[in-house]
Formats: sequence, C-alpha cells, structure tokens
Amino acid sequence: MAEESRRLVLAQRPTGLVDASTIEMRTGPVPEPGEGEALVRVRYLSIDPTIRTWMNDAPGYLPPIGIGEVVRSGGIGEVVRSRSDRYREGDLVVGMVGWQDHALAGPGSGMQALPPGVDPLAAINVFGVTGMTAWFGLLEVGTMRPGDVVVVSGAAGATGSSAAQIAKAKGAAKVIGIAGGGEKCRYLLEELGLDAAIDYKSERVAARLREEAPEGVDLYFDNVGGEILNAVLGNLAMRGRVVLCGAISAYNATSPPPGPSNYVSLITRRGRMEGFIILDYSDRFPEAQAGILALLSEGRLRHVEHVVEGLEHAPEALNLLFTGGNTGKVVVKL
Amino acid sequence: MAEESRRLVLAQRPTGLVDASTIEMRTGPVPEPGEGEALVRVRYLSIDPTIRTWMNDAPGYLPPIGIGEVVRSGGIGEVVRSRSDRYREGDLVVGMVGWQDHALAGPGSGMQALPPGVDPLAAINVFGVTGMTAWFGLLEVGTMRPGDVVVVSGAAGATGSSAAQIAKAKGAAKVIGIAGGGEKCRYLLEELGLDAAIDYKSERVAARLREEAPEGVDLYFDNVGGEILNAVLGNLAMRGRVVLCGAISAYNATSPPPGPSNYVSLITRRGRMEGFIILDYSDRFPEAQAGILALLSEGRLRHVEHVVEGLEHAPEALNLLFTGGNTGKVVVKL
Repeated sequence: MAEESRRLVLAQRPTGLVDASTIEMRTGPVPEPGEGEALVRVRYLSIDPTIRTWMNDAPGYLPPIGIGEVVRSGGIGEVVRSRSDRYREGDLVVGMVGWQDHALAGPGSGMQALPPGVDPLAAINVFGVTGMTAWFGLLEVGTMRPGDVVVVSGAAGATGSSAAQIAKAKGAAKVIGIAGGGEKCRYLLEELGLDAAIDYKSERVAARLREEAPEGVDLYFDNVGGEILNAVLGNLAMRGRVVLCGAISAYNATSPPPGPSNYVSLITRRGRMEGFIILDYSDRFPEAQAGILALLSEGRLRHVEHVVEGLEHAPEALNLLFTGGNTGKVVVKL
Repeated sequence: MAEESRRLVLAQRPTGLVDASTIEMRTGPVPEPGEGEALVRVRYLSIDPTIRTWMNDAPGYLPPIGIGEVVRSGGIGEVVRSRSDRYREGDLVVGMVGWQDHALAGPGSGMQALPPGVDPLAAINVFGVTGMTAWFGLLEVGTMRPGDVVVVSGAAGATGSSAAQIAKAKGAAKVIGIAGGGEKCRYLLEELGLDAAIDYKSERVAARLREEAPEGVDLYFDNVGGEILNAVLGNLAMRGRVVLCGAISAYNATSPPPGPSNYVSLITRRGRMEGFIILDYSDRFPEAQAGILALLSEGRLRHVEHVVEGLEHAPEALNLLFTGGNTGKVVVKL
C-alpha cells in the first residue's frame, strides 16, 4: 500500500480557542513533486500566535486561511525526493511547510536550505521569525539604547524570552520581564538572568512597575496588549517607546477588548507606540542572524523550546500560547 | 482712589467643566514693578484646552495650578510702565500673562516683545503656541509628505483649523476635517477649502472615512481622542501615523475614558502613534513662524478667532472648547 500523507485543514473558523470543530485531519496520497520541485517530509512545525489570527475571516498582513485549506505554518522539513537543482535529498529546509506530513518545495515556495550543522530547533526559534522579531522589534522599531529600562511582556514565551535576553546583552540598564505564574518568573530570574520578574497573575503590574522602574519605562516590548499594555503606558518614561509586537490577550477575543486608556500619557511623556510586521525586515535577516549567532556563541542567549510530539497535537500546541502553558518556543515534532 | 486689578484664581479643582465654584475673582492693588521689571496691562488671553489639564491635581508636563493661584494662561499685554531695558512703554508682549488684569514682565517671565506691526490676534493664534503646535505636529511629529491623505479632528478649532490648512498648503492629496455640526462642516469646506468634512455628531465617522479614504489614512492629527481616534485607527493606511496633539474628549472626564481598542491595527498596518508637547520645540519657533508668515502672505492660511469680551468670562470661554461652542481660536479680550 502506498504511503499516506496527513494534513490538518481549517474546517471552521474558531471562536476563541481552537477546538475539535476547528481543524479536520485529511489523509491522501503523498504529493508528487513536479519538475523543479522537491518533496519535503515535515519534521518540525513552528507554532506562532499569528497562526490564530490567520484563522479569522479578517484582513491582515496575509490573507486568512481558507476553509478547507491546510493550516499555514512555518516549520522545517527534510528533502526526501528532489526534481530541482536547488534542493538535494537529505537537505533540511525551512519555510512555510504547513500543518501536514509532506510539503512541496519549489520556485516561489520560499523554502530555503539550512546550512549544514545548524540545529533545527535553533533554526526554527532564534534564527527564525521568532528571533528576528525579537531582534528587529527591540533594536530597530524600539531603537533600544544602552542604559534603557526595558520591559518585556510574554517574557517566558518564544519572542519575549529572546527579546529580554537581547536587551540584557545589548546593555539595558534593567530588564523587567512580565509573565504568568511563579514558576515562569523564577525561570526569568534564574535561567534567563533578568533583573526583575512580575507575575501578572498574582501581582499588581502597575504598582510593581512603579517600584521596579521609578524613573519610568524607556522601552516596552509588548506581546500581549490588554491591561498589561495599559499598565506600562501609565509608567512610561519621557520619550518612552512601546513596540507593538503582538496582542495575545486579544487574538481569541470575540469582541474587541478595551483599548489602553493610558495612551494619553504618550502626549505628556512625548511617547511613541509603533507596530511592525517582521516580514518587512526579511531582506535584513542575515544581519540579525549574524548578531544572534554571536550572542549564542558568547553564551549570552539561550533558546528554549517546548516540544509537542505529533502532527495531530498541533491544535493543542497552538492553544498553549494563549493559555500560557508553554515556556519558550512551542514546536511540534512530527 | 488707586486703580484696582482683578485676578481669577483657582478656588477649587473642577470635576468636569469649570463652574462657579472653580474660579474666584480677587481684587487688589495694581502690582508694583521692581527694578528690571515692567508692568503689563493684559489685553488678550489665549484660551487653550491645556489650561483645563493644569487645573487637575495630576502630574503633567507643567505642575498643576495651585489652589489660590492665578489661572495660568498665555496671552498678550501692553507694557504700561517699565523699569527694565528690555521692555518699553507701549510694547506689546506675549507670554504667560495669566487670567488677570495686570502681570509683571521681567527676567525669567518669558514675556517677549512682539515685533511692531504684528496683529495681536495673529500673534496669539497662528504665530503663537496654537500655530506652532499645528506646524510641528503635522510636519515634524507626523512627518507629513506631499500626497498624504490627512485627517484632522477638532478641525474647526484653533489648532485643527491651522493644521488642516497647512496640510493643504504642503501638498496633501486630501484633507478631511472632522468637526461637530453642519455649520462647522460647511465652514471647513467653504471657508477653509478642505476636501471633505465629517460631522461626528450626525455621521458615522468610521463609515465616512472608509468612503473618503478608501486607501486608508496616512496621517491623523488627533485633537480629541476617544471614539474618533478609534475610528481613524481602524482606517489607517499602511505605515500610517497618528499624531497625538490632545484628547479634548478626556480632559473633563472624571474616570478614564475607554482607550482605542483599534490600536491593534498599528501592528498590521505598521503604524505609529506619537505624542508631543510643543514646548519641546520652542527653540525652533522662528523657523515655523517664518513658514506661517509665508503661507499667510500667499493667502493660503486664514486665522480665525472667537473673541469673548471681559476677563470675568474667561471660565465660560474655556468651557467653549469642550462644548464645541467655538469656531477658530478662543480669545478673551480684556
């Protein structure tokens, strides 16, 4: 019997978290690479909050995933058959593989071979979109300067943990991480070496920020939005900057969550709040990857992954991002 | 009997609009200029929304007005007696004169003589903080470029009407003014020559913006905050910019008004929202004043004042800003 290939398609747009009705597994023959294409066996999926936004029927920086389409996702695969000069059997490739066993690489697929010897988990995490988002968000959009007091929310998550460590390495005067739960906060202090950690589940964020940053927050790297964003806006330093990376607190909301009423302090503090989409920086990824490599080899950056086994568990893996069940980058291993 | 001098002092911090209990008139002798000082007879008061914020017991970019202190206010006066080389009798001076009949000019008072021949109303309006705010907010903070689709709220007000006209003169593709009421909207179209006007009292702002700016808003000059800010954020163009000049809708609020839930579109549209305080630009006022003078002499900028007669009516004049009772700059003539 011929090998079969599984794929997870969007069956129905979710309301709130993804559930059993959202995703359907379909099985079919392994796809056949055409001339100039290669067949890729998917090894890892990169589980990112943005996937949840693509499931909504709303305009975004990429079109929504269509009903019946494979769930769009970054990941890493291995070339198992090639009819292309660009891909050799055994190559590891990185790109938008989708939630499926097999993908096709070819012209326009954007899939790129990994240099030999690169750890695939590092490739998917700090050398991938996650690390790039932390790097450009902090240093370019946020124009981080040595001596800044930096706050990072979602600090135990994939992007947040990289952003917080990069801030430390680049000379922030103080890096304060915000995360949910005592265990994550201990991780921030003991494993990542941050200067302070605030547990938003048990502490009053605004009050703790006043204590930890009495002169105000120079740079806030925001992954979550909502009340935490509002609390930091209320504690902004003069010419403070807010980098809007994501708004995890809103991605599963069925009605618009309240906006940050403290945005008015952007006036009195001459502050700036700016959003970005990492794809705009893709031309400059090599520069950031070189910087990340240097930090890794100096031991100043750790990458941590939360590995979930099995394609069929990709939906639960996605939900972890919103329930706070992960520490580090969520990856599905096939 | 010696001449008396009146002053309006803050008797009690207001909740919402200023009322009879907020301000108290006190009468006393005309102040005596010391060596190096000049006695100034106040002729005009500049009535600005920020005065209301100074009445709150809250930290801001200037300290709150103390209870029993004269209400802080810009304005213009005439030097009636001088013991200073810097001021001559008959000079008109501009500066923080306060809500009173007489003020003292001297070292550190910041009061500056107006060049002869300058219309005092123009000096208080387009050459003053109002015009400076419009100029630097639009061109520096907002980095307005020819071809931009520009939206201005509070567009019939002092700063808004200048900002909207400067945007037209500087090559905006389209300037859309938002104001309250049909009369103001006719004024925007017929008197100021804007391309479109939206009456927020009778129209759905978000829907009209989608019609008038189908490609989105490149630059929003925000004087009001609240729901209008939220509507524009929802219609931002890629790399759209929001200049936060003020938040009139919030200045009289007793609890924090809801924040703009559409701030999330700053992420997908790679937008930026930035506040500023015009005092930071005071070194560069001459450059902007030269630019304003050129626009005035080319007939591309009109300055309009709403003149209220009598010091005793300054509190009602201030309230006009929040009830929308004015078109153009509110000025009290003494």
